[in-house]
Amino acid sequence: MGLLAAGIGAGIVAVGAGIGIGMIGKSATESIARQPEASGDIRGAMILTAALIEGVALIGAIVCILLALGIGG
Amino acid sequence: MGLLAAGIGAGIVAVGAGIGIGMIGKSATESIARQPEASGDIRGAMILTAALIEGVALIGAIVCILLALGIGG
Amino acid sequence: MGLLAAGIGAGIVAVGAGIGIGMIGKSATESIARQPEASGDIRGAMILTAALIEGVALIGAIVCILLALGIGG
Amino acid sequence: MGLLAAGIGAGIVAVGAGIGIGMIGKSATESIARQPEASGDIRGAMILTAALIEGVALIGAIVCILLALGIGG
Amino acid sequence: MGLLAAGIGAGIVAVGAGIGIGMIGKSATESIARQPEASGDIRGAMILTAALIEGVALIGAIVCILLALGIGG
Amino acid sequence: MGLLAAGIGAGIVAVGAGIGIGMIGKSATESIARQPEASGDIRGAMILTAALIEGVALIGAIVCILLALGIGG
Amino acid sequence: MGLLAAGIGAGIVAVGAGIGIGMIGKSATESIARQPEASGDIRGAMILTAALIEGVALIGAIVCILLALGIGG
Amino acid sequence: MGLLAAGIGAGIVAVGAGIGIGMIGKSATESIARQPEASGDIRGAMILTAALIEGVALIGAIVCILLALGIGG
Amino acid sequence: MGLLAAGIGAGIVAVGAGIGIGMIGKSATESIARQPEASGDIRGAMILTAALIEGVALIGAIVCILLALGIGG
Amino acid sequence: MGLLAAGIGAGIVAVGAGIGIGMIGKSATESIARQPEASGDIRGAMILTAALIEGVALIGAIVCILLALGIGG
Amino acid sequence: MGLLAAGIGAGIVAVGAGIGIGMIGKSATESIARQPEASGDIRGAMILTAALIEGVALIGAIVCILLALGIGG
Amino acid sequence: MGLLAAGIGAGIVAVGAGIGIGMIGKSATESIARQPEASGDIRGAMILTAALIEGVALIGAIVCILLALGIGG
Amino acid sequence: MGLLAAGIGAGIVAVGAGIGIGMIGKSATESIARQPEASGDIRGAMILTAALIEGVALIGAIVCILLALGIGG
Amino acid sequence: MGLLAAGIGAGIVAVGAGIGIGMIGKSATESIARQPEASGDIRGAMILTAALIEGVALIGAIVCILLALGIGG
Repeated sequence: MGLLAAGIGAGIVAVGAGIGIGMIGKSATESIARQPEASGDIRGAMILTAALIEGVALIGAIVCILLALGIGG
Repeated sequence: MGLLAAGIGAGIVAVGAGIGIGMIGKSATESIARQPEASGDIRGAMILTAALIEGVALIGAIVCILLALGIGG
Repeated sequence: MGLLAAGIGAGIVAVGAGIGIGMIGKSATESIARQPEASGDIRGAMILTAALIEGVALIGAIVCILLALGIGG
Repeated sequence: MGLLAAGIGAGIVAVGAGIGIGMIGKSATESIARQPEASGDIRGAMILTAALIEGVALIGAIVCILLALGIGG
Repeated sequence: MGLLAAGIGAGIVAVGAGIGIGMIGKSATESIARQPEASGDIRGAMILTAALIEGVALIGAIVCILLALGIGG
Repeated sequence: MGLLAAGIGAGIVAVGAGIGIGMIGKSATESIARQPEASGDIRGAMILTAALIEGVALIGAIVCILLALGIGG
Repeated sequence: MGLLAAGIGAGIVAVGAGIGIGMIGKSATESIARQPEASGDIRGAMILTAALIEGVALIGAIVCILLALGIGG
Repeated sequence: MGLLAAGIGAGIVAVGAGIGIGMIGKSATESIARQPEASGDIRGAMILTAALIEGVALIGAIVCILLALGIGG
Repeated sequence: MGLLAAGIGAGIVAVGAGIGIGMIGKSATESIARQPEASGDIRGAMILTAALIEGVALIGAIVCILLALGIGG
Repeated sequence: MGLLAAGIGAGIVAVGAGIGIGMIGKSATESIARQPEASGDIRGAMILTAALIEGVALIGAIVCILLALGIGG
Repeated sequence: MGLLAAGIGAGIVAVGAGIGIGMIGKSATESIARQPEASGDIRGAMILTAALIEGVALIGAIVCILLALGIGG
Repeated sequence: MGLLAAGIGAGIVAVGAGIGIGMIGKSATESIARQPEASGDIRGAMILTAALIEGVALIGAIVCILLALGIGG
Repeated sequence: MGLLAAGIGAGIVAVGAGIGIGMIGKSATESIARQPEASGDIRGAMILTAALIEGVALIGAIVCILLALGIGG
Repeated sequence: MGLLAAGIGAGIVAVGAGIGIGMIGKSATESIARQPEASGDIRGAMILTAALIEGVALIGAIVCILLALGIGG
């Protein structure tokens, strides 16, 4: 069961990261295009929120690697 | 069953964090682009709500790590 | 079965919190950008509704922790 | 079966509360930003409808806690 | 089977109430913001339709409590 | 099987009523806000269509109560 | 199997009626608000199409009652 | 298996009729509100297309009644 | 298996016809309202495309009747 | 298994034809309403693309009839 | 298993062709209505992309016919 | 299992190609209608991206043909 | 199990590539139509992001070919 | 189970990368078309966020390759 979970879980983690960081990157590029002189503040908010998602996604990826290698449980 | 739950659960947690923080980050960057002088208030609301989601997501991630390592249950 | 429920349930709880608080945070940042002088009232409504969702989500997270640790049932 | 239901049910309850109260909180913050002088009436309608959802969600959460602790059935 | 149904059913009931009352509360707050002097009529329609949904949702919740406590069937 | 159907069916009935009456209540409050002097006609159409949905939903709820109490079948 | 079908089928019938009559009621109230003097024609089209959906939904509900009471099959 | 199919099939038939006739009724009421003097042509197109959907839905409903009563197969 | 397929298949056929003919009927009524003097051409295109969908749906319905009556296979 | 596939496959084929030809018919009627003098070109493109979908759908329907009658395989 | 795959696969192939060619045909008719004098270029792009989808769909349909007739595998 | 995968996989491949090339063809025809003199550049980008999707889809189709004919694995 | 995974996986990979490159190609053609003189920069960004998706999709396709040919695992 | 997970997981990873990088590439091309002189900043934000998604997706792809080759677990 761990192997099944590793593969499917890794896929869903990538979907989660894709939806979240995708929406942020989408609006960040549009915002810079609309207001180029505020690109510093925009990039700050972009990195801050993207990092929060990336953190959760990496934890999920590590769980999947643990399962794929049969470590733990 | 715990291993299966660990992998899939970690994936769904990442989706949840991605949807939530993604929407917040999306509107935050757009809001800063529209009203750069209110970026302090916007960043405050952004961090406050993102933290609430991050908290729930981290609890979920910890549950998954517990399951992956076979601790408890 | 309790272990399976713990992992998947924790994931769905995070999705619920992400959808709910994400929508609130999204509109709160946009509202502050549109009407900066009403940011006090906006923040009040934001925290009030986010707290209601957070409360339900935390109850769900606690149920999942109980299941993961094998307490009860 | 009760344990499985407790975890997944708690997750779906959180999704329900998130969708419902999230939509209300989203429009409440936007409405206050658009018409700050009507914030009393808006907050009244917001709390009234959010309480109706919160009530159903709490009943669902209590059912899940009962199941998690193995009480009844 | 009754226990499984109780938990998942309670969750879906909450989703139903959340979608329905959430849409009503969303448009009610927006309508009051747009036309504050008609807030009496708006609140009347809001309560009337929300009560119809709440009634069906409470019946569903009672069915789930019956199942969780093992009464009947 | 009857018990499983009772719980899940009750949940789906609530979703049906929520979607239907929610859409009606949503547009009714918006319509009254846009045209307060036609609120009599609007309320009439609102109640008429909401009653049709409520009728089908109550039949569904009664079927679920029958199943939960083990009557019939 | 008949009992399972009765409960879930009753739920899906309610969703069908909710989606259909909900969309009709939604646009009817909006149309009356936009053109109050054509409310007779609008109400006629509303009742005609809602009746067609209600008819199919009632047939479905009767099938579910038959199954719940164990008649036929 | 026939009984299971009868209930669920009846539900999906109702969803199909609800989506189809609902969309037609929705646009018909809006079209009459926008152009009251063309209500004859609009009602003609409305009835024609709604009848095509109703026909397929009734065939589906009859199949489900056959299955519920155990006739044939 | 044939009986199960007959009921569920009949339902999905109705959904297909509902989506397709519903979209056509929706735009046909709106188009007639916008351009009443072109109602002949519009009705022609409407009937042509609706007939193509109706044909496929009727074939599907006939397959389901065959299965329900246990003919063939 | 062939019978199960025949019924459900026939349903999904109808959904496919409904989505595809429905979208084409929807835009064709709207296009004719907007530009009545180009109705020849529009009807040409409409028939061409609808025929491509109809072809694939009929192949799918024939496969389902083969399965329902137990020919081949 | 081959028979089950043939029916359901044929259905999904039709859905794929319906979505793809439907979107192309939808925009092609609208584009011709908006710019009748560019109908040659539009028809060229329409046929080119529709042919790419049709090609993949026909390969899928042939695979399903092979499975339905029990050839190969 | 290979036969089941061949049929369903071929269907999903067609859906993938339909969504992707459909979106590209949709916007290409609209773009040519809006800016006929840039049709060379538009057609270039259209073919380039459609070819990338077609490549992946053809690989998937070949995998399905291999499975349907029982080659390999 | 490897064969089942090869077919369905190849299908989902094609869906992924279709969604991703489809969205990019859709906006690229629209962007070139809106700003023909910036087509060099647009094509650069288009190829860069499409290549990132294509890379992941090709890795997934190779995994599916490995599984279909029974190499490894 | 590892083989099944490898194929389906690789597919879902591609979907995740497709959704995420697709949204970013979509808005990047549109932003460059709207504001060509800010293409440096836009490309920077585009690459930064796309790299974050690509990273998670490659980890998921590597997990799937490990599973396909039967290494580890």
